[in-house]
Amino acid sequence: MAHGSGGAFTSQLIDEIFVKEFDNETVKELEDCAIVDGSKKIAMTTDSFVVNPIIFPGGDIGRLCICGTVNDLLMRGATPKYITCGFIIEEGADSDVLRKIVKSMAATAKEAGVKIVAGDTKVIEGNGGIMINTAGVGFVETNLNISSKNLEEGDVVILSGNLGDHHATILGSRMNITNNIKSDNAPLNEIVENLLKEKITIHTMRDVTRGGLSTVLTEISRCSNLDIRLEEDKIPVSNEVRDFCGLLGLDPLYMGNEGKCVIILPKEEKEKALSIIRNSKYGENACIIGEVMTKEEDKPLVYIETEIGGRRILDVLQGEGLPRIC
Amino acid sequence: MAHGSGGAFTSQLIDEIFVKEFDNETVKELEDCAIVDGSKKIAMTTDSFVVNPIIFPGGDIGRLCICGTVNDLLMRGATPKYITCGFIIEEGADSDVLRKIVKSMAATAKEAGVKIVAGDTKVIEGNGGIMINTAGVGFVETNLNISSKNLEEGDVVILSGNLGDHHATILGSRMNITNNIKSDNAPLNEIVENLLKEKITIHTMRDVTRGGLSTVLTEISRCSNLDIRLEEDKIPVSNEVRDFCGLLGLDPLYMGNEGKCVIILPKEEKEKALSIIRNSKYGENACIIGEVMTKEEDKPLVYIETEIGGRRILDVLQGEGLPRIC
Repeated sequence: MAHGSGGAFTSQLIDEIFVKEFDNETVKELEDCAIVDGSKKIAMTTDSFVVNPIIFPGGDIGRLCICGTVNDLLMRGATPKYITCGFIIEEGADSDVLRKIVKSMAATAKEAGVKIVAGDTKVIEGNGGIMINTAGVGFVETNLNISSKNLEEGDVVILSGNLGDHHATILGSRMNITNNIKSDNAPLNEIVENLLKEKITIHTMRDVTRGGLSTVLTEISRCSNLDIRLEEDKIPVSNEVRDFCGLLGLDPLYMGNEGKCVIILPKEEKEKALSIIRNSKYGENACIIGEVMTKEEDKPLVYIETEIGGRRILDVLQGEGLPRIC
Repeated sequence: MAHGSGGAFTSQLIDEIFVKEFDNETVKELEDCAIVDGSKKIAMTTDSFVVNPIIFPGGDIGRLCICGTVNDLLMRGATPKYITCGFIIEEGADSDVLRKIVKSMAATAKEAGVKIVAGDTKVIEGNGGIMINTAGVGFVETNLNISSKNLEEGDVVILSGNLGDHHATILGSRMNITNNIKSDNAPLNEIVENLLKEKITIHTMRDVTRGGLSTVLTEISRCSNLDIRLEEDKIPVSNEVRDFCGLLGLDPLYMGNEGKCVIILPKEEKEKALSIIRNSKYGENACIIGEVMTKEEDKPLVYIETEIGGRRILDVLQGEGLPRIC
């Protein structure tokens, strides 16, 4: 509890772990706020991370909290620049675990090209858990307009890779299941930067996190008031995740991911865009999974043409999903 | 738990409470991030709020989380512009209480001139508690340089008002003590804006939160490598807080506040600055409480000349302080 007092022990924690690992001039200043270069248009986002367990196959809450915020900025074409982090630490948290997580944040921030500029630490009662909020600022080119409202009929829907890995990892960890599934937590900078560098027209991008692909695409279709038709056999899921889902009755379309995005763009761009994404880090399994269609009913719908010729309507996730997945 | 799924119940919570109360075009967009106007230099800060109880005399966690972040931006001369908020809600939280807090955030944001542009909601196990992280962005004039490193010998130390109110309020609430003490949680925009408008030279400003005046001044004196001498009888504390402290053996110099700041500036500016602060909202009890002195020992010191002629060395807060004060 003394580490949350704002006094000597808080300073010690800040100096010995945060300032040391984040290691940049701004964070060393220890003023009330950081002052950094800005730009004409900025993007802002925030996420709190309460994932349990905090360390899992393929990642940890430190990597996750950077990826989540960086990806949200990227999805509207912003260049991620700065991250703030607020730690809520439960009494009894292991300082070696905290250091490991902070090191992971620093490494992921470096990979994603963002600077951690401000932070805060609170300590509460509990059982050694760690929760982290990250907020991010990115710079945006003023002529970019990437939004869920921008779909057009005939657009193609590209998914950047396999579904379900993060969800299956967290659930598998909690159930003590041993397998080779790893979280996909990753910063998607390279995919987005390469598309923008090649001047590919992008109508919308969204990262496919809590609620899964069905939720994200349903939200997009409602914003643009158009249908989205998916082809079941085009949706990439690894064999291991497919087996895991079969065993537990899970649907990859509603499972959360932390390093996947959907990119919707004009069909003229599809070959070039797909090739760019597949040649970018974390995009090697990208597929075209569907297309944007005229609205057939009163409400816009997302549906799957199944392999046996049926049609299955997707929706936003109902019910609880997997608690504390991120 | 379903309200944290990222699916239908999360949307409902966002639509019915957050979007409704925050009521601005950016927050209505529901994209992965908000895109807003920027500026050449920006200030960034973050704080997590875990205060217990979440509603207390004079305020609540909603007002507190806006004030804390806005004040951190103001302390370096930035104009607060945008706030992001991340809610971590414990299972069983009362939706009327949540709505009350969100309304309070909206009202305080309006008072402080900031727009809430992005948010996130997570739900965890627990007993109905609510924790909020806020991150803030402000715009900074590029020629401003307000920093803890800037003290000069002879500078005067102004405190913007009475010490100890917030700390005494939270402690009193937990002990079920009935009195008239209220939290000072307030946004200090007017004080800072009026000083800058009148072109008062400011060497440093800090809000006096966790750890209290002693901690903040000790940190400043170390950054500037100069002593700070305070006069005991000049430090403003209300009679009620003084009595409360006497009863419980508390020292107002180490108690947390949420609407007070120290402003350190050249002595030539002192009369004009004090008058401006006293005529600003939340600055009516401002006092000159001390001055910056040459360093007498190896290490810079903050000390009090007591009324009976002694000298008491202050330090950063040792030990736990009051847990969950903010």
